[in-house]
Amino acid sequence: MLSKTYTKYIQSLHHKKFRDIENVFIAEGSKVVMELLNSTKIECVHILAKEPWLRENEPEIKKYFNGPLEPVEDYELEKISALSTPSQVVAVFMKLKQGAPDVKGKITLALDDIRDPGNLGTIIRIADWFGVSSIICSDSCADRYNPKVVQSTMGSIARVDMLYTNLVEWLKKNSSLPIYAAALTGKNIASLKGLQEGIILIGNEARGISPEIMQLAKESITIPKFGHAESLNAAVATGIILSHVIASTSPPALSEGEGA
Amino acid sequence: MLSKTYTKYIQSLHHKKFRDIENVFIAEGSKVVMELLNSTKIECVHILAKEPWLRENEPEIKKYFNGPLEPVEDYELEKISALSTPSQVVAVFMKLKQGAPDVKGKITLALDDIRDPGNLGTIIRIADWFGVSSIICSDSCADRYNPKVVQSTMGSIARVDMLYTNLVEWLKKNSSLPIYAAALTGKNIASLKGLQEGIILIGNEARGISPEIMQLAKESITIPKFGHAESLNAAVATGIILSHVIASTSPPALSEGEGA
Repeated sequence: MLSKTYTKYIQSLHHKKFRDIENVFIAEGSKVVMELLNSTKIECVHILAKEPWLRENEPEIKKYFNGPLEPVEDYELEKISALSTPSQVVAVFMKLKQGAPDVKGKITLALDDIRDPGNLGTIIRIADWFGVSSIICSDSCADRYNPKVVQSTMGSIARVDMLYTNLVEWLKKNSSLPIYAAALTGKNIASLKGLQEGIILIGNEARGISPEIMQLAKESITIPKFGHAESLNAAVATGIILSHVIASTSPPALSEGEGA
Repeated sequence: MLSKTYTKYIQSLHHKKFRDIENVFIAEGSKVVMELLNSTKIECVHILAKEPWLRENEPEIKKYFNGPLEPVEDYELEKISALSTPSQVVAVFMKLKQGAPDVKGKITLALDDIRDPGNLGTIIRIADWFGVSSIICSDSCADRYNPKVVQSTMGSIARVDMLYTNLVEWLKKNSSLPIYAAALTGKNIASLKGLQEGIILIGNEARGISPEIMQLAKESITIPKFGHAESLNAAVATGIILSHVIASTSPPALSEGEGA
């Protein structure tokens, strides 16, 4: 049974302030926890899970984690979970070191004030899909260790370097790289096909990129609109842009019977 | 002040069963409510909002709505809201008629068991952005009138025809059209560039497309992976695919100074 003190400790990790003090974060759900255990970059501190889950996964867990496995009851998981539907496992991990991203010869994402944890997590997952190794976040972005961010990354959190910083200063320091700002007007994203090096700027969900940051961009780029929606979700826009910059580098030939 | 009976009535509309019986749904938030009011396809029944919001928006509202404007208090909005952070306005609208989508000569989305309301709403918004006029949903998909779906569409709900049906039967009836199944392996989505007519199949968030439906597809298509994430979010994948099928129809020429 979980002690009151330990329950309160885990609950405190729902909040950035205490994650920062303790230098740990929590991850929930079988898939995310197993992916993080499997990562060589992240150290696990504690695993709290339902007994059947522990039994089923013990052989796999033991490959990566030597600490005690703590069986907990449903009502205890509910108390410590930060998600609306608690899963079978909550684990505590050490935070990663803040990276010093290498941006030379690479495509790098820069996020200006992405506030929604689900969006940030989804963007990290997208970066991991497209092999983007670094994300630069303005200090006002959602915390990467927010439980909802961790959940939305689906395990990608350990594979993408992230730097939280004063984005204006950082962009000025890296002004030798071309900076492309995702916006509602600008050049068609298709024009970035095959780009090898540069920074893709994504702005806040409601307000877009702030004027101060916008003026540091070389150029605005946009996803052509064929219908009437006013905008696209920030994570969706990020996925579309990266797919055109990166995935279009080697399009296969049309095959027989394909429309044109 | 809201009566207990009316408060309970609005709360009942958080559930599909009662939305079906009453043939209405609720929308929340200034942006979504104003977009729906502005739509010629959707009829508004009732508007409940904080007094300052009503005062500010009354001239605009009056263009589209003749009914009474009911000022409510914060605590009342909290009671009737279906969202975790209640906004300034909740409105009741008549449901749209279920469409009989016209798929000839068009790109149509078919969703197999998309369960997450946020994903469904985001997919509707994406369809609206790319001018996809119809979405066919398996009966097991989230309800389009779920308050979280309505919220995530950001007003696009009135602009996209949706049909909930037995997807297997519907696909069989429309087998004259090419059906492309989004999957983790298959042909590069870039090969669909310029496709004029066809059905793009998107599967469940965890399990993908069901085997029964998969065998009705002409071909599997995939978003090339350059990194390590196991998959992409269903809505993100939908956006990326549509951007390659539709937005790539007229890519502009590279301009001076653009990479590679």
